[in-house]
Amino acid sequence: MPKPNQYALILGGGRGTRFWPRSRRRNAKQVLSVAGERTLIQATVDRLAPLVPPERIWVMTNEYLRAEIARQLPEVPAGQILAEPAQRNTAPAIGLGAVVLQSIDPDAVMGVFPADHVIGKPRQFLRYVRSAYREAEKGSLMVLGLQPRWPETGYGYIEMPNGTEPGSLNPQKVVGFREKPDLATAKRYLAAGRYFWNAGMFFWRADVFLAALRRHLPKCATLLSALPAFGSRPFRSQVQRAFPVCPNVSVDFAILEKANNVMGLACGDFGWSDVGSWDAVYELLPKDGERNVSRSGLLAVASRGNYVDAGDKLVALLGVDDLIVVDTPDALLVARRDRAQGVGELVKLLERRRREDLL
Amino acid sequence: MPKPNQYALILGGGRGTRFWPRSRRRNAKQVLSVAGERTLIQATVDRLAPLVPPERIWVMTNEYLRAEIARQLPEVPAGQILAEPAQRNTAPAIGLGAVVLQSIDPDAVMGVFPADHVIGKPRQFLRYVRSAYREAEKGSLMVLGLQPRWPETGYGYIEMPNGTEPGSLNPQKVVGFREKPDLATAKRYLAAGRYFWNAGMFFWRADVFLAALRRHLPKCATLLSALPAFGSRPFRSQVQRAFPVCPNVSVDFAILEKANNVMGLACGDFGWSDVGSWDAVYELLPKDGERNVSRSGLLAVASRGNYVDAGDKLVALLGVDDLIVVDTPDALLVARRDRAQGVGELVKLLERRRREDLL
Repeated sequence: MPKPNQYALILGGGRGTRFWPRSRRRNAKQVLSVAGERTLIQATVDRLAPLVPPERIWVMTNEYLRAEIARQLPEVPAGQILAEPAQRNTAPAIGLGAVVLQSIDPDAVMGVFPADHVIGKPRQFLRYVRSAYREAEKGSLMVLGLQPRWPETGYGYIEMPNGTEPGSLNPQKVVGFREKPDLATAKRYLAAGRYFWNAGMFFWRADVFLAALRRHLPKCATLLSALPAFGSRPFRSQVQRAFPVCPNVSVDFAILEKANNVMGLACGDFGWSDVGSWDAVYELLPKDGERNVSRSGLLAVASRGNYVDAGDKLVALLGVDDLIVVDTPDALLVARRDRAQGVGELVKLLERRRREDLL
Repeated sequence: MPKPNQYALILGGGRGTRFWPRSRRRNAKQVLSVAGERTLIQATVDRLAPLVPPERIWVMTNEYLRAEIARQLPEVPAGQILAEPAQRNTAPAIGLGAVVLQSIDPDAVMGVFPADHVIGKPRQFLRYVRSAYREAEKGSLMVLGLQPRWPETGYGYIEMPNGTEPGSLNPQKVVGFREKPDLATAKRYLAAGRYFWNAGMFFWRADVFLAALRRHLPKCATLLSALPAFGSRPFRSQVQRAFPVCPNVSVDFAILEKANNVMGLACGDFGWSDVGSWDAVYELLPKDGERNVSRSGLLAVASRGNYVDAGDKLVALLGVDDLIVVDTPDALLVARRDRAQGVGELVKLLERRRREDLL
């Protein structure tokens, strides 16, 4: 049974530039159907439904995306889809969410979920989420740790106590947070068995989080707690002034690394992927006999291991292997699959060239 | 001074499937701006202008292309742009042209020119053309031979007498025609120095050609000479019946290999290319510092030696080398440059799949 004080705050303000040219400011990764029929943010809401109905879903996004997200999530009340006045990383965004939720329900327990991940086994996932909400109710700052599947250098790690068993539903005290490691360290983490990927999924009572914010990020806490009542006209104007003054910092770094009431779940596999690049999408989707993945009509001759996404257009490949081909009406990307991480750099180049039309 | 009995018959009925997806049935290679601002057929007419004014230019094409060619060549009288009732290779097409020209001018001397070649040095070219028309006037079947630049296996060769000097304006008796050789033979031809590429450029009096046709391809000659007067309504209907019955054969094979009055010019370099593939276009055009050729906006990172043609669209390349990328509204080609010859095979696959919309 969904508990009436359980809320979800979905963080949907990222850009996902590595999905350019499909992703744009007004069409970011989370509102794209990257790995299925539903968009990533729709799938995020769908999978939470058994625990958190749409009436208790809140979304923190930005002005570029608010209208599109509201369109994609008709079941979520439009007033619960908020736009950050500026990008200030996760600590201020979650702080603002906590202020709003606490004003609505002083007993609110909030789960924080990224809007742009894929979770292949949602029922497994919900077992951990249920346990995490329960632990949060008791006053902990709860994090989900994911069992690492390879020595990834692109994620932060959560160090759990010796002897931690992945897959247990019993929360344990977190030993510490480790920033993105180099490869040697990541390999050591993987071998040690007690380091877990930090996937940015958190659970806490709004009041507990705000107390931690007051202690560890007092400037931000003061700015946010001074806001008028949520929904009032003065709220709207004052949040525009206060929010951009908040420090630009992640909740991991600003709060979780410092607090002493942080608990974690060492989750087993629930088919998680942050689908960080076109190559990750390629890996997720079913392949044909030549290991090609095509979301368009494809005519492939002597071509293997390609990812093709060109809408209704026919794509003909001749003698090419391991490419990403993504076509849009105004921009076309052709990249080597093992360079897919570099697509974000292309977007930075476009910014430098002031190609606003393509961002 | 242009001589008033010199005519040009431009053969513009080919498809150029190796330029798919840019080339289509209604948009074949000769009506594309493959290597410059002007289309290939426009450039063909332009370069002949000093010798053959538009009033004496005739074009043999097909029903798919006639309207587009007429649009591109407003200076050529529309009635001189003819559509073959069927594809029957060059012998019947030139035969029909000769019948028409002779009916207009019994002294007509016709030059036959492919519509889809590039000639980089038109003034050099015209020196040979002028000499060829002169020789044709005397009653020879004249061909241009091009000094080979590599052991090409895709062209037929013209064998000239021992001691032939490339670049001479003096016609010589042709020893024989050689079909497309294998590589070893092509290398031998190149070393021997007296074999020249047959580029499909011919010159003869219309009456001399029709005499040769009567002798060597009598069925075709009979069918064509029985046609009513050119331009009459009965002509139009009877040519529809007669032409498709003509043998499907090239003028080289049917006439030139057999006739004994064939003369040739061993031309020096006049910048000729048949631009047989996207790779040939790549070779023709100027390159940037990374050896890329782009006819669109290009953002290239760690990418070298690519040919990019996507209209107004920006193309971003990341970590890819030596590709052909050609984008159109309904089809996109990504091919390895050294496989560019195989693009025609893709078109055959599309035909087999009955993708008429893409042909």
